[in-house]
Amino acid sequence: MLKSAAEPDFIETEVSVRYAETDKMGVVYYANYLVWFEVGRVAWCKAKGFHYAEMETKDDRYLMVAEANCRYKSPARFEEDIVVRTGLARATDKVIRYRYEICKKSTRELLATGETTHVVTDMNYHPARLPDRYRKFFSLPPRRAENYELRMTNDE
Amino acid sequence: MLKSAAEPDFIETEVSVRYAETDKMGVVYYANYLVWFEVGRVAWCKAKGFHYAEMETKDDRYLMVAEANCRYKSPARFEEDIVVRTGLARATDKVIRYRYEICKKSTRELLATGETTHVVTDMNYHPARLPDRYRKFFSLPPRRAENYELRMTNDE
Amino acid sequence: MLKSAAEPDFIETEVSVRYAETDKMGVVYYANYLVWFEVGRVAWCKAKGFHYAEMETKDDRYLMVAEANCRYKSPARFEEDIVVRTGLARATDKVIRYRYEICKKSTRELLATGETTHVVTDMNYHPARLPDRYRKFFSLPPRRAENYELRMTNDE
Amino acid sequence: MLKSAAEPDFIETEVSVRYAETDKMGVVYYANYLVWFEVGRVAWCKAKGFHYAEMETKDDRYLMVAEANCRYKSPARFEEDIVVRTGLARATDKVIRYRYEICKKSTRELLATGETTHVVTDMNYHPARLPDRYRKFFSLPPRRAENYELRMTNDE
Repeated sequence: MLKSAAEPDFIETEVSVRYAETDKMGVVYYANYLVWFEVGRVAWCKAKGFHYAEMETKDDRYLMVAEANCRYKSPARFEEDIVVRTGLARATDKVIRYRYEICKKSTRELLATGETTHVVTDMNYHPARLPDRYRKFFSLPPRRAENYELRMTNDE
Repeated sequence: MLKSAAEPDFIETEVSVRYAETDKMGVVYYANYLVWFEVGRVAWCKAKGFHYAEMETKDDRYLMVAEANCRYKSPARFEEDIVVRTGLARATDKVIRYRYEICKKSTRELLATGETTHVVTDMNYHPARLPDRYRKFFSLPPRRAENYELRMTNDE
Repeated sequence: MLKSAAEPDFIETEVSVRYAETDKMGVVYYANYLVWFEVGRVAWCKAKGFHYAEMETKDDRYLMVAEANCRYKSPARFEEDIVVRTGLARATDKVIRYRYEICKKSTRELLATGETTHVVTDMNYHPARLPDRYRKFFSLPPRRAENYELRMTNDE
Repeated sequence: MLKSAAEPDFIETEVSVRYAETDKMGVVYYANYLVWFEVGRVAWCKAKGFHYAEMETKDDRYLMVAEANCRYKSPARFEEDIVVRTGLARATDKVIRYRYEICKKSTRELLATGETTHVVTDMNYHPARLPDRYRKFFSLPPRRAENYELRMTNDE
């Protein structure tokens, strides 16, 4: 049921490096790239046609992070304009994986790459399924009766 | 109904400066002192005999911040041990004010001072009153019947 | 030598509330407003014609925070678009004060107000003066010889 | 030249979950585990006999993060006492890798695991070697003349 996405369709959004995000080494502190990944995910959702905030408040579905990775190639500095590129790497109605590229806007130099894997849950952190109306945003086919039965006997 | 506390009874707790808390100037970023104030408040609650987490989850009472101030006297550096001193400056069953002193542990040098003012609310951010069982922690007298009636006709 | 600015000329910039900026109460954590103030200051500098990053790296001048205040009126929520309005409240070549208004973009509702006071320093945190070429950005008159002598005998 | 460490010698340190570290889902925001990893690394250094701050300021050597991973198993909540366990996974005089386990103190439940890989650099982010006096802390043998020559002709 996994959607292969060798070349994900990247959505771009921009952040400008905040002083708060730098550390005493003069560059952006490593944990803050995960915050930028989140900024990228939220922009990805908007670009696809929904607000992540509404998935939580209206549909009681949360994309809890199960795993996060980041590889740091070159440091980012205060006031630099940064492009966060976010693509869908894998999607089922239970597990979503995003891929990220962090670039310097002026030169398009690649500063970092990363991935996050998310489990769909309800507000009590219990595993759940993506609501049907969100399937299209994640390039999942609509659920048909026969699909559903198939899935029940041969789930991932 | 305000408790005057010219010399508040300070509760001390310690933090060690995290790399994440520094900025490109090599010292602790100014907003992080407000995080230390929060660490101080939580330690103050524990020292007084209750957990702030339980006030929220068991009693549906939140100390929402209405105002925060900080005066920065000398910078704090990575790995320095810091003493956060927290005292109750004012308390009613609706409004709580804390006072803070941030010191370097090794020399007791005063690095910053501050205050935060909190409004007691429920989980929907609506004003509420401190539950009776918390009154003693904030040096408020127990509510008596006559007090209660008096208050109803002559509230602050 | 202080420039009175009863109605400062506010510069506006926007932020969108990040998930990272919220806390378990469901709204933006109070210290993060100070980060938004910083975003506002940097935007103010750009609007006036210079990059704060260059003041630090090229001119060895830093606007160290000496005091910060924030009054919280209404909470900000995840994904809300926020307008940060930043105005110069006072300026000498040694001390700069900014004023801030945080508004919800959609309704222009005022969510918070605040001020920060900054001391001009060099990279070793020692008091210094604003370089002459920055005076105009802060509405300070150019330094003339007679002014300079006057100032030496009757400094603030 | 890599030191295999199948069962690294874990150093334990404790943090208490800060309100600032939680997000609107009511649990610790995922990027903050990387901050805890940093707290663990600093504690590891202290336990081994040196201060990481001094490696930077006195020896001009920085452990820049090249890669970070975290797997999240169970959420951490406000005011919970957390044990950060940090072990050395690999070490050369150019590359250091740490492994982490994040546990709930009360039950020892494993909440997350992770790794960070660091490149030894100077303050300009250029690759460098660990100073000789730090080799023992990372279980690296002292450099001898013959070793040195060997290394020069057959470096990794």
